[in-house]
Amino acid sequence: MANDTLVGNQHRGIPRQGASPHALIDAIEGTLADFLAAQIASLDSVDPALGGFARTARDLVLAGGKRLRPVFAYWGWRGVAGPDAPLEPMLPAFAALELMHTFALVHDDVMDESDTRRGRPTAHRIFADRHEHDRGVGDSERFGAAAAILIGDLCLVWADQLLARSNAPQTVRACYDRMRVEAIAGQYLDVLGESRPGAWSVERALLVARHKTASYTVQRPLQLGLALSGHTDPQTDSAYGAYGLAVGEAFQLRDDLLGVYGDPAVTGKPVSDDLRTGKPTALLMLARKLATPEQRAELALNSAGAVNPADGSGGFTPAQLQRRAQIITETGAPARLEAMIQERVADGVAALATAPIHEDARTALIDLAVRVTHRPA
Amino acid sequence: MANDTLVGNQHRGIPRQGASPHALIDAIEGTLADFLAAQIASLDSVDPALGGFARTARDLVLAGGKRLRPVFAYWGWRGVAGPDAPLEPMLPAFAALELMHTFALVHDDVMDESDTRRGRPTAHRIFADRHEHDRGVGDSERFGAAAAILIGDLCLVWADQLLARSNAPQTVRACYDRMRVEAIAGQYLDVLGESRPGAWSVERALLVARHKTASYTVQRPLQLGLALSGHTDPQTDSAYGAYGLAVGEAFQLRDDLLGVYGDPAVTGKPVSDDLRTGKPTALLMLARKLATPEQRAELALNSAGAVNPADGSGGFTPAQLQRRAQIITETGAPARLEAMIQERVADGVAALATAPIHEDARTALIDLAVRVTHRPA
Repeated sequence: MANDTLVGNQHRGIPRQGASPHALIDAIEGTLADFLAAQIASLDSVDPALGGFARTARDLVLAGGKRLRPVFAYWGWRGVAGPDAPLEPMLPAFAALELMHTFALVHDDVMDESDTRRGRPTAHRIFADRHEHDRGVGDSERFGAAAAILIGDLCLVWADQLLARSNAPQTVRACYDRMRVEAIAGQYLDVLGESRPGAWSVERALLVARHKTASYTVQRPLQLGLALSGHTDPQTDSAYGAYGLAVGEAFQLRDDLLGVYGDPAVTGKPVSDDLRTGKPTALLMLARKLATPEQRAELALNSAGAVNPADGSGGFTPAQLQRRAQIITETGAPARLEAMIQERVADGVAALATAPIHEDARTALIDLAVRVTHRPA
Repeated sequence: MANDTLVGNQHRGIPRQGASPHALIDAIEGTLADFLAAQIASLDSVDPALGGFARTARDLVLAGGKRLRPVFAYWGWRGVAGPDAPLEPMLPAFAALELMHTFALVHDDVMDESDTRRGRPTAHRIFADRHEHDRGVGDSERFGAAAAILIGDLCLVWADQLLARSNAPQTVRACYDRMRVEAIAGQYLDVLGESRPGAWSVERALLVARHKTASYTVQRPLQLGLALSGHTDPQTDSAYGAYGLAVGEAFQLRDDLLGVYGDPAVTGKPVSDDLRTGKPTALLMLARKLATPEQRAELALNSAGAVNPADGSGGFTPAQLQRRAQIITETGAPARLEAMIQERVADGVAALATAPIHEDARTALIDLAVRVTHRPA
């Protein structure tokens, strides 16, 4: 398995402080590759099937992505630790956030029955196809889901193990635990909303955005970075908290827009994915609120043209999806969402203004606030 | 929600050392009840739906069970710490093992699509029924599975949080992490075996037993107890390791026998559950190995009487299940399994003979070795 020898940090060198974002991401991926190679070797020695299982987890972790959570944690730490603090001891904690993210993605994909992620097959798809190829007994979808649930579980445990290597103070673990519970609670609300779209609202969609996305993408990673620095400055903690919630919510609102209007070639997701599944996003909830009675009635129709009071999902033709996207545009909801994104980015930037952090970190975080909320995918 | 006020330890009093097994289990359940009440209150304040979600998790944790993992951890600790060490600081760590166990059970039940556990509805069943009752949108089975995956995730994170409260030394966490990876790896092998029963063997079934059951039911809890005591005596560690593997394997072999011959009224599982699902347990693998060509041919038939080379599952009538159980008896596999259980119990007891542990702990562990491997459920 040539891939097991993926070159880790010892070969690449640790980037100097102030290094380019690419060098930081390389260092995080190198930390992940080293850690995962050791786990694969250990499981392989128990049973080759376990080695294969762990390799699939490794491939999912290293398949790419924006590595946003480690990047926010880095700047959260850097803002306080300053440019001379050694980066290397922090890398396991930053990388742990990426393993935790893989856990969340893999379990989300099982729950949503999504077949692709970033344009590649999802974990349960990979195992279901393998089962089919090996002519396994029983339902291959069921085998795929079971194996993917376990891949997620494994990544969550691995994340913990990697975090423990950073010898992080107790405050780091407290922040990490808060983040994990918020991410799980947010995902439960998300699943609940999809099952009761008629009873959902803009407010509840924003609550999901705050818990499922803002907490674990921006807010807690930043605060975890602060805790890693060993400083417990309440002013910085609250500035990071306010920035994180505002920018994290804006990030999710952008995601809502991309879920309806994004280019599948860039997002790696099917066209109009959220419209297809009937997901009660803030965008859809706002559209329903702003819609004229005629627009609302048309949005409430299902694919067969019958009234579907719960805005239920499924079975729409491309033309119907396009029509729904057009109605949503006509309600003015997307324009309102763009304004909400701007407001939140401004709030986030303002929250940082007087925080006692290093200037280069402030600049980087302001830049990130704009970039992550104005992305094509 | 009257149940939220379940009385915790502060009201019950912590049992004195040498207290009855019931007092220990009460103290562990009290620790769990206190911890869970605080988590419920915190999630309830975010959104009442999250409070309901957390209450379901609490009910599953407190629904009963033998609390074997905390009990083994207690004796592992007690064997070294002696009768005068204060119990209270250890309770969060012991109780954490029970939360971790709920995680494993809930995810296992999703993977196996089991509707009952200990005679009660499983997590995904509870949520699927609730979805139906609330006339939710979409597939209620899918909603149930999603919510149950999240209940398991939450219990795994909660277990971690509770463990952190014991201020456990780093050696405890290392043991805990090893246990979690082994449990997940063992479960993957179990799922893999069920999907490829034709390619399974007695040896691989025993590997599953070692990882999925022995490690996380007996061996690691005992060693975690030792680590909690702050002692790192290698002789005791290795005695606990040998006892744990032997007794843990015997525990699983008893489970295999109960899965075919157990009384559903006592086990809380459907009759002949393992035969119904075609699970390649050590019992079934041994039966296939010991069978005459005629017996093997009959075992290889599916419910329609056609040859089913992979011993595939499903659709057997009660009479067919009874016939299969009878063939297995006639191969001599159950008698051989009973002998293997005896051997392992003897090995486990022998491993403790010269370990430098307190006599009352040795006596309790010898008693446990016999009891957990000769149980009706």
